Amino acid sequence: MASFEIHAVRLPPERSTVQKLKQRVSEIFFPDDPLYRFKNQTAFTKVLLALEYLFPILQWAPHYNLTLLRSDLISALTIATLAIPQGISYAKLANLPPIIGLYSSFVPPLIYSLLGSSRHLGVGPISIASLVMGSMLTDKISYTQDPTLYLSLAFTATFFAGLFQSSLGILRLGFVIDFLSKATLVGFTGGAAIIVSLQQLKGLLGIAHFTSKMQILPVMISVFNQRHEWSWPTILLGFGFLAFLLTTRHISLRKPKLFWVSAAAPLTSVILSTILVFLLRNKTHQISVIGHLPKGVNPPSSNMLYFNGPYLALAIKTGIITGILTLTEGIAVGRTFASLENYQVDGNKEMMAIGIMNIAGSCFSCYVTTGSFSRSAVNYNAGAQTTVSNIIMAATVLVTLLFLLPLFYYTPNVVLAAIIITAVIGLIDYQSAYKLWKVDKLDFLACLCSFFGVLFISVPLGLGIAVLISVLKILLHVTRPNTLVLGNIPGTQIFHSINQYKEALRIPSFLILAIESPIYFSNSTYLQERLLRWVREEEEHIKANNGAPLKTIILDMTAVTAIDTSGLDTLCEIRKTLEKRSLQLVLANPVGNVMEKLQKSKILESFGFKGVYLSVGEAVADISSLWKAQP
Amino acid sequence: MASFEIHAVRLPPERSTVQKLKQRVSEIFFPDDPLYRFKNQTAFTKVLLALEYLFPILQWAPHYNLTLLRSDLISALTIATLAIPQGISYAKLANLPPIIGLYSSFVPPLIYSLLGSSRHLGVGPISIASLVMGSMLTDKISYTQDPTLYLSLAFTATFFAGLFQSSLGILRLGFVIDFLSKATLVGFTGGAAIIVSLQQLKGLLGIAHFTSKMQILPVMISVFNQRHEWSWPTILLGFGFLAFLLTTRHISLRKPKLFWVSAAAPLTSVILSTILVFLLRNKTHQISVIGHLPKGVNPPSSNMLYFNGPYLALAIKTGIITGILTLTEGIAVGRTFASLENYQVDGNKEMMAIGIMNIAGSCFSCYVTTGSFSRSAVNYNAGAQTTVSNIIMAATVLVTLLFLLPLFYYTPNVVLAAIIITAVIGLIDYQSAYKLWKVDKLDFLACLCSFFGVLFISVPLGLGIAVLISVLKILLHVTRPNTLVLGNIPGTQIFHSINQYKEALRIPSFLILAIESPIYFSNSTYLQERLLRWVREEEEHIKANNGAPLKTIILDMTAVTAIDTSGLDTLCEIRKTLEKRSLQLVLANPVGNVMEKLQKSKILESFGFKGVYLSVGEAVADISSLWKAQP
Repeated sequence: MASFEIHAVRLPPERSTVQKLKQRVSEIFFPDDPLYRFKNQTAFTKVLLALEYLFPILQWAPHYNLTLLRSDLISALTIATLAIPQGISYAKLANLPPIIGLYSSFVPPLIYSLLGSSRHLGVGPISIASLVMGSMLTDKISYTQDPTLYLSLAFTATFFAGLFQSSLGILRLGFVIDFLSKATLVGFTGGAAIIVSLQQLKGLLGIAHFTSKMQILPVMISVFNQRHEWSWPTILLGFGFLAFLLTTRHISLRKPKLFWVSAAAPLTSVILSTILVFLLRNKTHQISVIGHLPKGVNPPSSNMLYFNGPYLALAIKTGIITGILTLTEGIAVGRTFASLENYQVDGNKEMMAIGIMNIAGSCFSCYVTTGSFSRSAVNYNAGAQTTVSNIIMAATVLVTLLFLLPLFYYTPNVVLAAIIITAVIGLIDYQSAYKLWKVDKLDFLACLCSFFGVLFISVPLGLGIAVLISVLKILLHVTRPNTLVLGNIPGTQIFHSINQYKEALRIPSFLILAIESPIYFSNSTYLQERLLRWVREEEEHIKANNGAPLKTIILDMTAVTAIDTSGLDTLCEIRKTLEKRSLQLVLANPVGNVMEKLQKSKILESFGFKGVYLSVGEAVADISSLWKAQP
Repeated sequence: MASFEIHAVRLPPERSTVQKLKQRVSEIFFPDDPLYRFKNQTAFTKVLLALEYLFPILQWAPHYNLTLLRSDLISALTIATLAIPQGISYAKLANLPPIIGLYSSFVPPLIYSLLGSSRHLGVGPISIASLVMGSMLTDKISYTQDPTLYLSLAFTATFFAGLFQSSLGILRLGFVIDFLSKATLVGFTGGAAIIVSLQQLKGLLGIAHFTSKMQILPVMISVFNQRHEWSWPTILLGFGFLAFLLTTRHISLRKPKLFWVSAAAPLTSVILSTILVFLLRNKTHQISVIGHLPKGVNPPSSNMLYFNGPYLALAIKTGIITGILTLTEGIAVGRTFASLENYQVDGNKEMMAIGIMNIAGSCFSCYVTTGSFSRSAVNYNAGAQTTVSNIIMAATVLVTLLFLLPLFYYTPNVVLAAIIITAVIGLIDYQSAYKLWKVDKLDFLACLCSFFGVLFISVPLGLGIAVLISVLKILLHVTRPNTLVLGNIPGTQIFHSINQYKEALRIPSFLILAIESPIYFSNSTYLQERLLRWVREEEEHIKANNGAPLKTIILDMTAVTAIDTSGLDTLCEIRKTLEKRSLQLVLANPVGNVMEKLQKSKILESFGFKGVYLSVGEAVADISSLWKAQP
C-alpha cells in the first residue's frame, strides 16, 4: 500500500444570504460583467464609454475613411439589388402590400446602423417571420376584406415584437432565446421553408382562388382542386425563372467568389420578366402583375397602432412569436459573422437595438425586421466593413421609393414567387439534420417534431412542441441520471467507470458508485432505488463468486453539483437503510454548495468525521488501513 | 517533478442505437428491474410469483395467525373510531352528503387489502382531495341546485382519478408524481389546511349563507358580512369541542404512547355532542344537525357515471388533479411506514392498487380515497401488522351503515367542523418550512409560492405554479451552471476548487476550469461567454502581477455528464477563439457518453491525441514536461 495523507474536506467560505443572492443574480443577468470596462475610469471616460455603449457607431465613426467607404459602397449596392425584390416578395408572404416591404428596407436599417453592434448585419424583413405574421393574422382576418385593420394589426404586432425584444434586452433576459436550440431551429426552418414554397404554388401556377390555410394538406388539396385555374403562360414564365435563379444559386454555392451571381439574380429576373411582360402586355392578360405602387417615403403609421379592441390579443401574440423568431435569427447571424471576424456581439445590447428598430419601424409603416441571413451573407461576401453599408443600402431604397416605383408596374407576381422559393429552399438544412441523427438522437427527435409540427399543425404550435421536447430532454437527464460503478486505474489514485475503462479494477469489499447529476426531488426516489439495486446486484455477484463480503459503499459526489432538500433526505434514507444491513456509506468529494447544505441540514454530523473524504482514492486508502489496524 | 505515466482516454464499448434505446427505456421505466425475481425460476414458480405480485395478500396469508389477528383487531377498532366521524366530515368538505364518506370507508379498504403492498396503510378519504374535489366541482355547479348531477360528477371524477392512477402504474410512469417535490407539498398542504380551516368557520359560527368560493378573501368577507347569522350556542359548542380535540391532540403529540387519546377523541366528541344536542333538542333550534342518513350498504353507482356532456372536461380535470394528490399522499405514506418497518413498497404497483380501488369505488357510491396519513399513523401506532386491519375496519363501518346510522341524527355539524380543523391544523408544517429556508432558499420559494398560490388564487393553479417553480429551478441550474477555477492540493494529484480549498494552488501558465453541469443548448452561449470571461480576467490578473503568461486552458469535464449538438458546437467555438489568441484548450476526463459524442461529431479529431487527458493531473504533468522539452 502506498503511503498517503488524508486531506480534510472543506466548506466553501461562509457567505450571507444577501451575498449569495447577489452572486446568483449577477450570474443570471450579468454573466458577461458588462460594467468591467467602466472600472477605474474617470467620470468623463465613463460618460464617453456609456455613449459608445448606447451608440456603437461612435466607436468607429472617428476612424472612418475612404477605403472603408469604398468597401461599404460596393457591398451596399450589392445588397440593394437583393433587398428590393426580396422586400417586395416577403411583404407578399406576409399578405401585406409589396410597398410595405420596401418601406421596411428603408427605416430599420438606418436605425440599426446607429444602435447595432454587429458590423456585417444586413437588416430587413426575413421569410420566416413574414410567413408567421401572415399566417397568424390571416387565420383571424383577411387582408382583402379589411385592409386597414390588417395593416394596423401588422404594425401593432411589429410594435409589440419590438417592445418584447427591447424589454428582453433591458431586463437582460436574453437567455430566453437560448431555449430555441439549434436542433429545434433546423427542423422549424425546414418545415417553414416547405410551407412557404408550397404557398408559392399559388403564384407559380397562377391560381386565383387559393386556400388561406398554411398546413400542407389544405394547400395540396387547393392546388389540385383548382386545376382549371392553372395558367400555362404563368407556369412557363415561373419555372423558367425558377430554373435561372436556382442555377445562379448553385454557381455561387460551388464557387463562393461568385457570390454576386446569386446576389444579382433576383434583380436581373425582375428586370427581364418585367420587360417581357411589358412587351407581351397586349398578347396575354393571364399573367398577374404587381401593378401600381404609391410613390414616396414611408408614411407615418403611429396613428394606426391598435391598442384596444377584440384583436389586441392576436396582435400581441403575433408580435411575441415573430419577435422571438426575428431575435433568434438576428442574434445568431450577428454572432456568426462576429466570430468569423473575431469581434464580440453583446446579445442583450443587440436585442435592445433590434427592438428599438422595430418599435420605430412600426411608427413608419414597416413590419417586423431583423438581421437577415441572406442579406448579411451577401453583405459580408461583398466586403462590407461597417454598418455604413446599411445606410447606403437604405439610401438606394429611398431613391427607388421616390423615383423608380412605376418601373415595377409590369413585374409579374410569378417572379416574386420564384425568388421566394429560391430563398427559402436554402433553409432546408438536411445535412445538419443528418448530423443531428448521427450525434444525438434526442436532438434529432426535437428537430423532427418541430419540422412535422410546423408542417401539419401550425407554426406556433410546432415551435411550442419543439421547445417542450428540448426542455423535457433536460428534465429527463435530471430525472433518470446515470449511475456508474467505478474502479481503480492500476498504478494511479484515479477511479473511473469500469464500463468505459476496461483496465479499471474493482476493489474487494468496496462498491464505488458515481452519480452523474444533481440530486433533486425529481430523481431522489429513483436514485434511492437504483443505488440499492446496485448494492443488491453486487451482493448477489459476490455470493455467486464467493468474493470478499461487501463492507463499504463509496458515493463519488464529484458530478453531484447541487442537492435540494429532497436529495438530502434521500442521502439520509440511503445511509440508514445500508446501516441496517451493516454496510457503511461514505461520500467522496462533495462540491462546495453540496457540502454547505450537508452541514446546514446537520446531515454532515450523521456521517461523521470519517464519512466524507476529499477523493475516492483517499477514502479507499484510509478505510482499508483502518480495516488492517482492527482485523 | 514526480514521475508519471499518461493513460489514454477510452471510449465506452460500442453499442448500437437499438441497444442504447433499450437501456434508456429500461432505466426510465424499469429502474427497479421488477422481473429480477423471475430469473432462473421454473414455470410454476413464475406463475406463483406473478400471482403474489398481483395480490400481495398471498405472500403473507398462509402464515397468518391468531397473534397477528389480535394486533390487527385492536388497531382496526381504533381506526374505525376515527374513520367514521372523519368519513362524515370529509364528505362534507367535498360538499357531498355525509353518507358518501361512510360508503368510501367501506369498499375501498376491502379492495386495497387484496391488492396493496403496504401493510400499514389506513385507507379512506383525505382532507386535501376532498377539499379540491369540492372546490373544483362547486366552482361550476352547486350540490343544492342539482344534487344528482353533482353526485354523478363526483363519482365520474373518482373514476377518472382511478383510471389515471392505474394507467400511471401500468405504463410505469410513476415518476410523474416525483415532480411534486416535498417543498411544494409542504407549502401546498399548509395553504390548503388554512383554507379548509377557514371554510369550517361556516359550521363553527353557524352561518347559513356562506360563500362557495375557496380563496381567503371572499371567505373572510363572508364571515364578517354575515355577522348577524352568527349563532352563539353553535359557537360555544364548537369552540368547546375544538379545545377538547386540540388538547387530546397535544397530549398524543407529547406522549406518542397515548396515541389512542387523540384517535378516540373524534368519536367521543361526536357521541357527547350528539347526546347534548338530543337533550337540548326542544330548547334550541339554532344548532344545525346531520339529520337523516339512509340505512344500508353502498348502492351501485356505475349507472351514474357521466361520459358525455358539457361537464365531462370538468370531471376529467377534477379526476386527474385529485388523482395526483391522492397518489402523492398514498405513496408517500406507504413509503414512510415501509421504511420504518424496513420493507419495500413498489411505487408502480401501489399506483395500480390505488387506481383500481378508486375505479371500483366509483361504481359503489364512493368518492376518491387513498392511504390517509392520519389513519395510517393511528393504525401503525395501534400495532397493525397486516392489511387485515383494513378488512376489520371496513366490517365495523358496515355494521354502522346497517344499524347505527339513526344514532347520528342529532350529531351537530359544528362538531364535524371542529374535527376537520383539528385534523388539518397538524398539516401546517412550519418547522419543515423553516428548515427549507435554512437549507435551500429556492426550495423555500417553491414552498411559499404554492402556499400563497393556494391561499389567494386557486388550488390547481397554486399547485401548477409550484410545480413550474420546481421545474424552473432545475432549468436554472442547467442554464446558469457553476464554473470553478481549480488548483492543485499540494502533495497530491488532486485538483479542487480554489474557492472551496484555500490550500489549493494555481499552476503558473495554466488556467484550470471545471464546468458543473451538462452542456446543453440552454447554457452553451452562457458557458462560452463565461469561460472567455474567466480567461480575460486571468490574463488581466497575470498582467497586473507580472506573472508567467497564460498558455493552456484545461477544462475539467468530470461533471459535464452530457452534451448535445449545441454544446459540441460551443466547444469547437471556444477552441477556435482561444487558438486565435494562441492559447491551447485541453479537455480532462470526459465521461463515456460525452467522449462518444465528441468522436461521432469529429470534434475529438480537432482536439487531437494530446488534447484529451484522463485527469487534470495528467494533463498538467504531460503538458509541462512538453514545455520543458521544447523551451
